[in-house]
Amino acid sequence: MMSNNPFYTELCRAYTRLYRYHHVASMIGWDRNAMMPPKGNEARAAAEAELNALIHRTRTDPRLAEWLRAAEAEPLDEVARANLREMRRDWRDANALPESLIEAKTLAGARCEHAWRSQRAANDWRGFLENFREVARLAREEAQLLADDTGLTRYDALVDRFEPGVRAADIERIFGDVKQWLPDLITRVQVKQRDEKVLVPSGPFPVAAQRSMNLAVMKLLGFDFDAGRLDESVHPFSGGVPEDVRLTTRYREDDFAQSLLGTIHETGHARFEQNLPRAWLGQPIGVARSYGIHESQSLSFEMQLARSRGFVGLLAPMLAGHFGSQPAFEGDNLFRLFTRVKPGHIRVQADEVTYPAHVILRFEIERPLIEGEIEAEDIPALWDEKMQSLLGIDTRGDFRNGCMQDAHWTEGAFGYFPSYTLGAMYAAQWFAAMRRAVPDIDARIAVGDLAPVFEWLHANVWSQASRWDTPELVRRASGEPLNPAHFRAHLETRYLGA
Amino acid sequence: MMSNNPFYTELCRAYTRLYRYHHVASMIGWDRNAMMPPKGNEARAAAEAELNALIHRTRTDPRLAEWLRAAEAEPLDEVARANLREMRRDWRDANALPESLIEAKTLAGARCEHAWRSQRAANDWRGFLENFREVARLAREEAQLLADDTGLTRYDALVDRFEPGVRAADIERIFGDVKQWLPDLITRVQVKQRDEKVLVPSGPFPVAAQRSMNLAVMKLLGFDFDAGRLDESVHPFSGGVPEDVRLTTRYREDDFAQSLLGTIHETGHARFEQNLPRAWLGQPIGVARSYGIHESQSLSFEMQLARSRGFVGLLAPMLAGHFGSQPAFEGDNLFRLFTRVKPGHIRVQADEVTYPAHVILRFEIERPLIEGEIEAEDIPALWDEKMQSLLGIDTRGDFRNGCMQDAHWTEGAFGYFPSYTLGAMYAAQWFAAMRRAVPDIDARIAVGDLAPVFEWLHANVWSQASRWDTPELVRRASGEPLNPAHFRAHLETRYLGA
Repeated sequence: MMSNNPFYTELCRAYTRLYRYHHVASMIGWDRNAMMPPKGNEARAAAEAELNALIHRTRTDPRLAEWLRAAEAEPLDEVARANLREMRRDWRDANALPESLIEAKTLAGARCEHAWRSQRAANDWRGFLENFREVARLAREEAQLLADDTGLTRYDALVDRFEPGVRAADIERIFGDVKQWLPDLITRVQVKQRDEKVLVPSGPFPVAAQRSMNLAVMKLLGFDFDAGRLDESVHPFSGGVPEDVRLTTRYREDDFAQSLLGTIHETGHARFEQNLPRAWLGQPIGVARSYGIHESQSLSFEMQLARSRGFVGLLAPMLAGHFGSQPAFEGDNLFRLFTRVKPGHIRVQADEVTYPAHVILRFEIERPLIEGEIEAEDIPALWDEKMQSLLGIDTRGDFRNGCMQDAHWTEGAFGYFPSYTLGAMYAAQWFAAMRRAVPDIDARIAVGDLAPVFEWLHANVWSQASRWDTPELVRRASGEPLNPAHFRAHLETRYLGA
Repeated sequence: MMSNNPFYTELCRAYTRLYRYHHVASMIGWDRNAMMPPKGNEARAAAEAELNALIHRTRTDPRLAEWLRAAEAEPLDEVARANLREMRRDWRDANALPESLIEAKTLAGARCEHAWRSQRAANDWRGFLENFREVARLAREEAQLLADDTGLTRYDALVDRFEPGVRAADIERIFGDVKQWLPDLITRVQVKQRDEKVLVPSGPFPVAAQRSMNLAVMKLLGFDFDAGRLDESVHPFSGGVPEDVRLTTRYREDDFAQSLLGTIHETGHARFEQNLPRAWLGQPIGVARSYGIHESQSLSFEMQLARSRGFVGLLAPMLAGHFGSQPAFEGDNLFRLFTRVKPGHIRVQADEVTYPAHVILRFEIERPLIEGEIEAEDIPALWDEKMQSLLGIDTRGDFRNGCMQDAHWTEGAFGYFPSYTLGAMYAAQWFAAMRRAVPDIDARIAVGDLAPVFEWLHANVWSQASRWDTPELVRRASGEPLNPAHFRAHLETRYLGA
């Protein structure tokens, strides 16, 4: 194949080189977060900037454009053609924006983020707004250039970088459906849970025992320790490369659940990476599909699997083994603890049921902001109104726990928020498909036989990498487009016992 | 200064970039040895090869040759001129050898080393010789090209890469002096120690306690934990970058001393790196001078300082604190334990007194081998003869514990061995100079006041980086050229109480 396709072959070589540079950058980034002592920071920043400049030069090498054009005319098989499509995506990502805009965006984002750290604590929206106006202006400019390049609308062009093929109109339709039933569902769950007795496990939970518990659960979840590690960092993440996945967590001695559920979440990301098809690694087609699909794996593990009554039954004796027995570790109590629902101000602390409300709210603000239908000044009023209608929470005047809580917009990242809830919905759809394929799957989970889960995810998601765009991947995996009915049914079953 | 020196300025930019690439390569190498799980190896090897190719391209950029020539004519101050000299050294290192020879060397070395792992175990000298002949042939070819380039002899050209300015004739004179008195000294020490009673501390020594002990000693030795770490690896080393030094050690539960003294050794390397002048970092002048000078720091810590009676008195209560009291931890006993002398076959297991014999033997074989005065076949007979005369040990037929014990020659590294003993001699000379400058230094060490040691090393070695070639550094630091009388006096004082 290769010899008939000289331009495609050149492209493969270039992207292999890029893959290796990314390997280095990823490990160095992991090290910075998990290992590096503080005084290493300045030299590391310079070294990483040099590496990023190298990667940028490689991605914008003028020969790539020429090869991409020429390779289109070569006799490529279907996989190679999909790879070429992904190369073009990467090329567009790297080449769509002029250097001057990238620099301006980086500077404005860094300035806004730096000031935000103290402004948030001081609840200083007016101060924040001064920097944020420029961030929003540049994000619109970026979106306009991407729109010109792709023929999409501004916001669609941003979303497409995170969720290839997904459009704002799709998201609006899906989120519109959720808005119809979610507030009522939240109310009903709260009513149902009002009289439930939940024992809170009493600590302290020593870090060494928590780490050992986490490792045991990762093993149960099939993490390959010959191809990855678990370490600690302030902000937990899944890093490294598919051949060597680096997970991190953080420990609080008064609460084992944060670290345990966080580790399960990251293990979902990790298994996707560890099971990407070996033959494609090094090429753009070999990369995990998208942010939403990646999140569908972490949430398949953390939400669909780990908070199911069956899996909680597996965790119960492990917890007793690592921390000593106590009544709170009894399975039914643990399940109630892990499925407690309580509307709150903060997205990252939200439970599975209220989380989508936080995302829908952000989508409904960032989309018109990017499209130029509202201005940055309009955000707090919209925030208050939507928090009230979706979660019944009054946030007026509380910018700190309202529209200033996230770093995403602060740093100029728009179009990413929907991925979180799309991921939760994909995950529900995967498990619905699994239950059709393996009707006794919940019983098998409950006895510790997780193989059917992993086999389904491997066949339908992990092994597909970037072979298809997101909507096509969803159709092939589950037999239908993204359908919020599965997510609704999942929540009703788990939280209302419907 | 910069604006008048456009070519020198370009060079500084290029070497700054190279410094940052080296930062990345060094961290990635540390990770491979200290952190990477086994299945990460293949992708890592490809990524590191890509990075090394990039570094090689940068070091052989044809514009460098032009800039180096042009910068010679620019009005540079003394420091800039020394930096230019070091740039030229780096440039020569990278450009002296044709790609084809580097490849052939790498291949032959890897093949020889790979086979050696089993051949050594099988005592198979004849099998080894078949691969090693090619390694030696290529090393001669390399040395000849370096000699043509520098005007030095073959072996001098190899040594100069490790010890700038040091010549084989100097080494021969110095080692010749040592040979005069060392065998007799070894005999006298053994006689003296014959009736000494030495208690061996009884373990096990749990790894966590050993690690804690090591960290405490590193703290005592001034290691900056905000600019470095201690981890584990199969082969301990000092890696990372001056801004973030990564030490490793390995633990045996039946012997705390190996890890403790190894950590002290690496801490000597680390403090040199951590105290290189900040203003020069990023430029070739800012690099630690040489392998021998670096070893003089690790041996200043491990041999001069840590095995002195005064310092052992500091270790004694720390050991009791970490492992529990036992009579073997009493100061005089520990000192006897740490200064035990016993001739043996293996260099890396040798004590301070017999170690130079192992190095002199290797120097006296590798030098004529490179100069073409002997052939690879002649090595075993020469080895036997020299082991007999220097250490009184019969090694005939025992290739495994004789000339096949080291990886250096196996991999094609010649000219490096002298650095070990030159380092030991520099260290003795530093402490002799310190005692002249601070007459009560041993008393101050004994009470835990190590500041005078660190201040002297900082002023005379660490802060000098690559400002001078090695002989000039030695003269400036100690007031005289390398003088083996200091090493002899040190050994006689410590081991014979003379």
